[in-house]
Order: sequence, then structure tokens, then C-alpha cells
Amino acid sequence: MAYERNNIQELSAYIPGEQPENGKVIKLNTNENPFPPGPAVEKVLGSLQASALRRYPPPTAKGLRESIAHLHGVADEQVIVTNGGDELLRLAITCFVEIDEAIAVVEPTYTLYETLAKTHGCGFIQFHLEEDWSLPQKLAENLNSSGAKLCLIPNPHAPSGTLTDAASLSALAQEFEGILLIDEAYVDFVDPQLKHDCIALLSHCDRVLLLRTFSKGYSLAGLRIAYGLGSRALIDPLYKTKDSYNTDYIAQKLAQAALEDQDYARGSWSFVIEQRRLLQKSLEAMGFSCVDSQSNFLLVSMPSQLNAQKLYLDLKAKDILVRYFAQPRLDNKLRISVGTADENKKLIDTIRQLLDQ
Amino acid sequence: MAYERNNIQELSAYIPGEQPENGKVIKLNTNENPFPPGPAVEKVLGSLQASALRRYPPPTAKGLRESIAHLHGVADEQVIVTNGGDELLRLAITCFVEIDEAIAVVEPTYTLYETLAKTHGCGFIQFHLEEDWSLPQKLAENLNSSGAKLCLIPNPHAPSGTLTDAASLSALAQEFEGILLIDEAYVDFVDPQLKHDCIALLSHCDRVLLLRTFSKGYSLAGLRIAYGLGSRALIDPLYKTKDSYNTDYIAQKLAQAALEDQDYARGSWSFVIEQRRLLQKSLEAMGFSCVDSQSNFLLVSMPSQLNAQKLYLDLKAKDILVRYFAQPRLDNKLRISVGTADENKKLIDTIRQLLDQ
Repeated sequence: MAYERNNIQELSAYIPGEQPENGKVIKLNTNENPFPPGPAVEKVLGSLQASALRRYPPPTAKGLRESIAHLHGVADEQVIVTNGGDELLRLAITCFVEIDEAIAVVEPTYTLYETLAKTHGCGFIQFHLEEDWSLPQKLAENLNSSGAKLCLIPNPHAPSGTLTDAASLSALAQEFEGILLIDEAYVDFVDPQLKHDCIALLSHCDRVLLLRTFSKGYSLAGLRIAYGLGSRALIDPLYKTKDSYNTDYIAQKLAQAALEDQDYARGSWSFVIEQRRLLQKSLEAMGFSCVDSQSNFLLVSMPSQLNAQKLYLDLKAKDILVRYFAQPRLDNKLRISVGTADENKKLIDTIRQLLDQ
Repeated sequence: MAYERNNIQELSAYIPGEQPENGKVIKLNTNENPFPPGPAVEKVLGSLQASALRRYPPPTAKGLRESIAHLHGVADEQVIVTNGGDELLRLAITCFVEIDEAIAVVEPTYTLYETLAKTHGCGFIQFHLEEDWSLPQKLAENLNSSGAKLCLIPNPHAPSGTLTDAASLSALAQEFEGILLIDEAYVDFVDPQLKHDCIALLSHCDRVLLLRTFSKGYSLAGLRIAYGLGSRALIDPLYKTKDSYNTDYIAQKLAQAALEDQDYARGSWSFVIEQRRLLQKSLEAMGFSCVDSQSNFLLVSMPSQLNAQKLYLDLKAKDILVRYFAQPRLDNKLRISVGTADENKKLIDTIRQLLDQ
């Protein structure tokens, strides 16, 4: 007999990317940062006392929250710290969307969004990206007609890596009558020359919620720390909805150390941007084509004679993991995370060997 | 304008116990363990490498889950590791209870249960404990008539500390047609001579879910690690409902170290049990009366001339925090966590001074 709600019973669980225990695997499948956290994080980690753990952590992650607010020039009350980006996404849905309402996305997109909607039991409306991965025409108008309460847009986009500029998102936010959640999980890897910045949207529109995470840009995926930025009209009710102590003491301390060492973080982002450029060049030289990415991964289309799923399996057999999605528009492509210079070289050399066979 | 769902708008946020930043405060208000985590936790904490944090953590907390299953003699698949007990409570509600169904509790109880029901938007049915804090007569029958889908029972009970024996809970579980969640947050502090054990219920009834936590018995409140034990009929859908990476790498590692050092844990539980006995004796000698507690706190009734709220405030002014609840049956009582021998002595001496004034 099944005891769970019908929507959970019908749900296929979200499948996270593979996390092999084999240490020799080159892991380019889940968009982790190829660099370790910096010396500031190491120092705080080395200074932690076990005795501090017997107490409950600050329930609103006070110290970290203040550092985040300071970095972005917003009020502390505009920041909510969450147990990874997953928690913020779930909170936004459960806080703002009744189960007889719906969220909207623009496909293809981060597959977790659909799982979260189905877990909540609300509706799920799909629009479709243009052929060049840009947002569709008249999106705001169509969102309004659809009655969507919340729209989730990853930017840079996953899994293509493309960036929608802030002006377009501002126009969308102004016209869309629901809440616009811009999932900026990968925003740290945008080329600084583009001067891309969506923080300013917060002062123009109280229906915009930005998601940032320490998992990618700050090399702390293991810690589960992310945050939301928005108006108090959005942040206050999210606080009421979250678990009372949602983030842990050590994660708060280490994330704060990472955030406050902007020099180290920016250095690692520059390196990823440079490696992304080199990796794209090498792949294109072998006949692959890549979508121009502002993220720490590349969406790579196969030359006509190659099958993406076969290449994924061949690479896996050589201990290199990349991501294959068996779904429309993506099934002739692989999503490859940008690794260290050595990892990227190993990837290129291995693909070359496979092509030569 | 409010954007959140009506149920969230109407909700008063759960107020966690005060967490003072002033280090000299004696904190007997949130039932933390008075002892630090043991040497096994210190050792693992000292050996952690920051570089491990750039990767996502094991999504099901594999190593920790296996240790938990081994300790309790259940299958790995009967264990779900969660981000504190709060997460397991929330998951149980959102996974099993439609918003037009209801959860049931027996008042007074842990106040978070009501917040979680209101956050989900489902109904909340209250029964009432007998005068001696025992479960009411015909509870299963009344639960069945009420149509409650899930019943939450803390055992040992919060905030009285009383224990309901396993046979009574087994009878309740057999007769109640919904899911019985037994919140065993404080079970580690039950006198071992009682040989209390609810794990055996799991093999008789697939509708029982047990909650255990590292926050109290293992002195790791700062880490946010708890777990659920139950049949696969309950655990499998909880896995589908949880956030994809719900617990972090460091928390998993330290909790596993704490769990595997049962000698240290049992030593700290014995000490708490002994201090509880001494504290109760001292309070009773001053005219207070205490409910017999099997937890790490005492629910203390005032002698007739004393006002509980005033004593709470007077103690707070002397840097001793205890818990006062302004609600029926509790407003002439204080809930006092058992501290170290020194903390308990300081508490008794301070109360004595206040009474002498």
C-alpha cells in the first residue's frame, strides 16, 4: 500500500549527476569548480573547535548574511541564506504558489524545477527557448495569459551556458505579473568585461528573486550554502517558510570566509573563463560545435558522424565523466564542465584517441 | 502587496529559543547537550581537507546511513538522513498529507508541529494529554474518527520529559489507521534500566516512522543532522520528496564519527541522567515540583508564591536562560535544560539568592 500523496507517488525522483567514489575519475559532469576553496577557507576550517557544535547555529546565519548584504550593497533583510540553491527553489515554490496555481519554465532548463513543482503538487507550464537558446518572443505576455505565479529562469542558462542580458530580464520582470526567480548559480563565471549585473533589478521591481550559490563560484558544493536576494515582500515570507535552523554552523563560517576573500574567488573565476575559451577552441578544432557559454560548462554538439550517448559511454569507460541528457534538443549534445588545465587536456587527448580508433 | 500563499501570510513564524551571543550566559533554554562532542569528532574535524568541499556530498549520506542502519539492526533502505529533525518533520507532512487532509498532535507539544502544518497549509487537529501528561484514553479511536493522516508524538514528551512505554505506542500504532511519527529527539536520555526500545515497532507496523537526532544525544546541534527510521513504504517516498543534496559533507563525516563512538555518547548520556536526578532533588528541596523526566530537561512547577515568567526574567537578568511558555498548562512552569554540574549548581545558587531577596 502507498501512503504518500498522489503527486509524490507519480513522481520520478530527481537523479543527481553521478558522484563516483573512484578517486581517479575526471569529473566533468556536475559543474563543480575545478579549484579547491582558497586559503581563507582552509584557515577557518583549521581553527574550528568541536565544542562549538553542541549549540544550535545562528538561525538566520547572521554573520554570513551581513557579509552577503555588504558585498551586494543591499539591506540584511533582503538576504536569505539557504541549504543550497535547492532549498531556495523549493521555498519559493512552497511559499508563493498554491497547489492549484502553476510555475512556468522555458525548456530545456534545469530538470530539478519540474521535480520541485511535482513534489509540491502545483502546475508546471513549459515555454520553449528559441533555436539560438534565447528567451522566446512575447514571453511576459504569454506568462501572464498562462496565469503562472512564479517563473524560474536560470541565467546563465543551464544547460546551454548562454547569458540573457540584464535589460531583457528587467523588461520581463516589469511586464510579468508574477514572481521572477533568476537562478544565478553560474553568474560568477560571466566574463567581467560584459559588466553583467542583475542586482540593480531589485530596486526597480519587488517581484524579482535572485538565487546565488557557494557551490560553483566558491568551490563549496560540499557545504550546501546558497542565498536569495530580493525585496522584503519576498524575503520575509521565505523566512517564515524555511526550517528553523536550515544551515549549519560550519557551513556558515566557511562560506563567510570564502565570500570575504573576493580576490581568491575572482582569480578562480578568471582561470575558469580562460580554460573555457581554450577548451572550446580545442573542441571546435576537432569538429565539435559549442554554444557560447558564460558559465563553467560547455554544451557541445556532435559532428554528424558521432553519437553523443556513445561518446558519453566511451569517455566514462576511460574514467572521464561528462553529462548526457536523453531529451529533445539535447540528445545529440554533451554538457562538459570546464576542468583544470590538466583535466581539460586529458579530455581532449582522450576524445582524440576515441575519434582515431 | 503580499505575494505569499494565504496560509503563509497568516502564519506566525516559529520562534526558536534565544541564542545569545554573550559567551558568559548559562544556556539552559534549548536542551542542548551540556557536553562537547567527543574525541572521535575532534579527530575527524582536525583531519578534514578543504579541497574535499568543492565536490557535491553523497546525496543519500551513504557512509553515515550505513552506520546508522548497522547500529539499529535495520536495512540501509529503512534509514533517511535529514538536515536536522526539522527537515524530517517537514518531509513527513509534505510527503504524506494532502493540504485538504490533517495532521494530529496531543497538546501541549513541540510548538513547531503546528507551524509546519500551517506552512504546508493542511489541517491541524489537537487532542489533549491527561493531567499526568500521559496519552489520552481512546486516542487511536479518536484519531481514526478525526481522519488524521499523520500523528506526531514526541517521546520522551516535550516539554514535560515524560516517557510513554513502547507497548502503549505499539498498541496505538496498530489501531491508528494513519502514519504514526514518534519524535525520539530525546530518547538517548532515557534511563537504560527501563530498556525502552521502539525500534522493534518497525517490524510490526509499516506505518511507524521514528525520528532520531544528533542535536541532543550526540552534542551536534550546530551541524543539523537527524534521521528517520521506518518501512520502505515510508522511507522511499521521503527520498523522492527531499532536496537532492540535503545534508553536507562535513556534517555527514562528523555525525558518523560521533555515532561510531557509542562509548563516549553513552558516557555523556549517563552523566546527564545523573545530573537530572541531582537537579530535580535540589529544586524539590526548594519547594518546586518536577515532572519525572526521561529527557535532558525538567519541567518545573512553581511553588504557589512564585510567578514563572518573573523567575524566567530574573534568571535572565543574572545571565541564566531557561524556557518560559506563555500557554495553557505551561504558564506556571519553566522548562530547564540539564547543564553541567557547575551550571546546575550556579542555577540552584542563583534561584536560592532570588528566593531570599
